[in-house]
Amino acid sequence: MEQASQRIVLLTDGHSDPLVAKTAVCVIRYRPQDVVAVFDRGAVGQTSQALLGVGGETPVIGDLNAAEGANTLMIGIAPPGGKVPDAWRPILVEALARGMNVVSGLHQFLSDDPELAAAAQQHGATIQDVRKNSEREVASGKGFRDDAFRVLTIGQDCSIGKMVAAVEMTRELKRRDIDAKFVATGQTGIMIEGDGCPIDCVVSDFVNGAVEKLILDRQQHEVLIIEGQATIAHPRYSCVSAGLLHGSRPHAMVMVYEPGRTQVHGMPHVPLASVARTIEAYENLAALMHPSKVVALAMNSRKLSADEAAEERKRMRGELGLPVADPIRDGAGELIDAILAYREKIVPAAAMA
Amino acid sequence: MEQASQRIVLLTDGHSDPLVAKTAVCVIRYRPQDVVAVFDRGAVGQTSQALLGVGGETPVIGDLNAAEGANTLMIGIAPPGGKVPDAWRPILVEALARGMNVVSGLHQFLSDDPELAAAAQQHGATIQDVRKNSEREVASGKGFRDDAFRVLTIGQDCSIGKMVAAVEMTRELKRRDIDAKFVATGQTGIMIEGDGCPIDCVVSDFVNGAVEKLILDRQQHEVLIIEGQATIAHPRYSCVSAGLLHGSRPHAMVMVYEPGRTQVHGMPHVPLASVARTIEAYENLAALMHPSKVVALAMNSRKLSADEAAEERKRMRGELGLPVADPIRDGAGELIDAILAYREKIVPAAAMA
Repeated sequence: MEQASQRIVLLTDGHSDPLVAKTAVCVIRYRPQDVVAVFDRGAVGQTSQALLGVGGETPVIGDLNAAEGANTLMIGIAPPGGKVPDAWRPILVEALARGMNVVSGLHQFLSDDPELAAAAQQHGATIQDVRKNSEREVASGKGFRDDAFRVLTIGQDCSIGKMVAAVEMTRELKRRDIDAKFVATGQTGIMIEGDGCPIDCVVSDFVNGAVEKLILDRQQHEVLIIEGQATIAHPRYSCVSAGLLHGSRPHAMVMVYEPGRTQVHGMPHVPLASVARTIEAYENLAALMHPSKVVALAMNSRKLSADEAAEERKRMRGELGLPVADPIRDGAGELIDAILAYREKIVPAAAMA
Repeated sequence: MEQASQRIVLLTDGHSDPLVAKTAVCVIRYRPQDVVAVFDRGAVGQTSQALLGVGGETPVIGDLNAAEGANTLMIGIAPPGGKVPDAWRPILVEALARGMNVVSGLHQFLSDDPELAAAAQQHGATIQDVRKNSEREVASGKGFRDDAFRVLTIGQDCSIGKMVAAVEMTRELKRRDIDAKFVATGQTGIMIEGDGCPIDCVVSDFVNGAVEKLILDRQQHEVLIIEGQATIAHPRYSCVSAGLLHGSRPHAMVMVYEPGRTQVHGMPHVPLASVARTIEAYENLAALMHPSKVVALAMNSRKLSADEAAEERKRMRGELGLPVADPIRDGAGELIDAILAYREKIVPAAAMA
């Protein structure tokens, strides 16, 4: 099915905390025209806006009968470990029995589940596991060009806003008539963009190679904004972040942080490395392959008031000497100004012509 | 089949360069009692010693009829990308038809190949894909104890001797009556040790977790010598190396280098990062999780004369201020002295009691 013809119900049933339901939050933010409803039996009658903080009047439903015209059920959560909650199985079976296609970004492949696969086949529905892949090429270390300027969003933690920052920066570049491409590296990014590679589900020997291929295939664009994953300071996922960094060999990086976050997401016993320390570690590791520099900070200030956010922005500018903006609250203009100025500085004019 | 009852033919046919056939080289070095023959049709009549540089009088054969008493055919190479050469298929089929078990460390799973799987079933043979795994747990960041002292071998490049250094150091510790355990993280290490995890074939989100579990399951030992993988300065495999570093959170590291190697193995267009720079990058990245220090250098001096090796050893000691030894040529004594001295320095006596 073409992405454009999808009429989506986002399934977040019982897991509608916006940090857990980040797939749902992002799909409804960036594809509002395609989302018919959010499914959460505990919040029927609310709006998506009230439940997830985005999506305006889009209704929350608890029965697929209420989702008129929907042809796609999309798993809207990204839990650690990537398994579907047991309580969701009857909902998935019912959707397939109605002939709805199921789209999932979980590590646990629904298309490999005998009951679900049989239901899909019986009713002519499809199950798309966005994370399923067969990447088997190692990186070449060759072929990158300076006229496709590579920018990677990195972060102080996972679930902090790297994908949102990347999408917003890509949109800002396009508004300026620059041929920019969002390079999706995770399931939600792929659901939004329609292409990309779910690198956290690639066999580790081939992560650098899979990322390199994403870049090589997209160098017709002038600026590539590459979706970051986790952080190299993450006890669980640094493997993924390192492969992404060295596979993409960015010219520049934008660092995403959230004021007030002190512990690793989901690991309350692990303190976060500071923003400055994380930047230093990223620049140090990047330099083993290609020199790279953090040129701006994207702040995730969702928990702050407008005044607090403005104050924090000023404070961090002073502390790190870098432009700072919340791409949702402030727009991505200042971040893009910094990226383009840095490109002008390091890429010879001839390469950009 | 128990590892102890394996009677092995090592298959390196047409690929007996010791750097490519490193699985064969290591298995015959560390399990000489179990190896019946090496199979290479282009070198029939030679000894393993002449062909691979190890294995003494073990014969090289070109016909399985010549391998009396053998019950296991082991794939002896580790090519980039991990695929079996086409010319080997008839040999594998013949081995299975004789009822021999096939053991493979390739990324391409032989047990998933319909022809080979059918042959195995028909003749009551087994196919063991050492890299096959279903690791699905994320790291916890908890539970490590100082009384199981963690030492990781790291390297300037892949295929440089990290596994050999780790095995030799483990043996030296055991000679000193210290309860040491070699923690295998690659297919060859697992073939030698009989347990471990093939981390380069684990889905990237779960590499840190798989490594952490290896450690947690082995803390009854006093010293854990963890087999390194590739290098965080490797364009292809840094993903694996980063996950291993942060999953194992070593107290100390031993750096393996080869004098005279200037380019990345298999990537002649990519210069190697210097030993000093690689150490700096490793210590910097390790510190995000757990402080760690390179306490000694293991030199791979196979291409040097005795005089040249002695000279190089002296030079590097002076340059980096660290103990240096080739574990094969000089023994691992000096490396172990450095590890034990460092342990005494950083681990409180109470934790070691």
